[in-house]
Amino acid sequence: MTQRPAERHPKTALTPATHTAPPARFSHGVRKGPVLQVAGQVGFLPAESGRPPTPAGPTLREQALQTLANVEAVLTEGGARWEDVVMVRVYLTDPDHFAEFNRLYDAYLADRVSVPSARTTVYVGLPAGLLVEIDALAVLD
Amino acid sequence: MTQRPAERHPKTALTPATHTAPPARFSHGVRKGPVLQVAGQVGFLPAESGRPPTPAGPTLREQALQTLANVEAVLTEGGARWEDVVMVRVYLTDPDHFAEFNRLYDAYLADRVSVPSARTTVYVGLPAGLLVEIDALAVLD
Amino acid sequence: MTQRPAERHPKTALTPATHTAPPARFSHGVRKGPVLQVAGQVGFLPAESGRPPTPAGPTLREQALQTLANVEAVLTEGGARWEDVVMVRVYLTDPDHFAEFNRLYDAYLADRVSVPSARTTVYVGLPAGLLVEIDALAVLD
Repeated sequence: MTQRPAERHPKTALTPATHTAPPARFSHGVRKGPVLQVAGQVGFLPAESGRPPTPAGPTLREQALQTLANVEAVLTEGGARWEDVVMVRVYLTDPDHFAEFNRLYDAYLADRVSVPSARTTVYVGLPAGLLVEIDALAVLD
Repeated sequence: MTQRPAERHPKTALTPATHTAPPARFSHGVRKGPVLQVAGQVGFLPAESGRPPTPAGPTLREQALQTLANVEAVLTEGGARWEDVVMVRVYLTDPDHFAEFNRLYDAYLADRVSVPSARTTVYVGLPAGLLVEIDALAVLD
Repeated sequence: MTQRPAERHPKTALTPATHTAPPARFSHGVRKGPVLQVAGQVGFLPAESGRPPTPAGPTLREQALQTLANVEAVLTEGGARWEDVVMVRVYLTDPDHFAEFNRLYDAYLADRVSVPSARTTVYVGLPAGLLVEIDALAVLD
């Protein structure tokens, strides 16, 4: 790569110890200066050696709570909290999951955030067996 | 929540007076330092007490114009203009709406922006009856 | 538009000379201060006068490589490199393309980035004939 002067804000990969390895050349999160971006997280359980990535369960509840915990692990790894998050993107596969997801989301965040972030929720296709994916953008001082 | 030193840039929720209440623990927009994030807006009319959120009408035209006005209300609430927007994300439900949406988008922004933002448009599922959702990221000085 | 004092960080449109004209009032990329946003890029070949936008080919491979090159052209136009990218959003139309796309993505980025960005990949609808769309957020110092 081209040589450039050292940057004021280097980019750092955020890789929680318990996370499964990404399936491609991307990081679970990165921080560069005041910006922390969490990659799309799904409801995979903490990695176990020799076991392929495994969802927390087949239900929306199991996957949503695990996904939120996985987002939080990346935030924590980067020195951030939910309070620092400005945007959450929620990808569901089924509009019928919206109300239940919102209840889970609200309960999860109740004690974690005073000024809620913005959010966009859309319905898309996800890999077989996955019901929810979430990414997040945080801004730190 | 953990105590931390006061931050240089507190996060502020942006809640236009006329907006309907979000269906979950998120804000219609947030500002933190130079970053202003508008949550996914849809074509709901200004809130009326006792009336559930109501789309401006069944057509793409009605919903697109209301959605853009709702985005603008959040920008204004945060002290921003369309000129400050760097990214607009457009979610449509039907590829056949692309050309008409673009005409409405261009007409709406013609007098509002000199350097157009970036944009991504994809086709996804939205709640029943909604044809368009838009979110936006602005950077202020 | 309302007069405001000159901003410290003006917004600049990033328009690679070879890119086809956007179909609406948006820019292929913008830079404002430290933030560079690349709009959703698809696998269109470099523009030729009198020819409508034309995909590099019908296959995922052809379109993915052209799309990545188109993203790179916008980054370059804004003085950025892949190393500056914090988030890549990948829109595919078919979950069966995930593994092949990841191989192409990894090979393309192998010599271009040391700390991989975050990434989210979802399956959505795209205009007829297009198999992949990619946008990217970069933060420069």
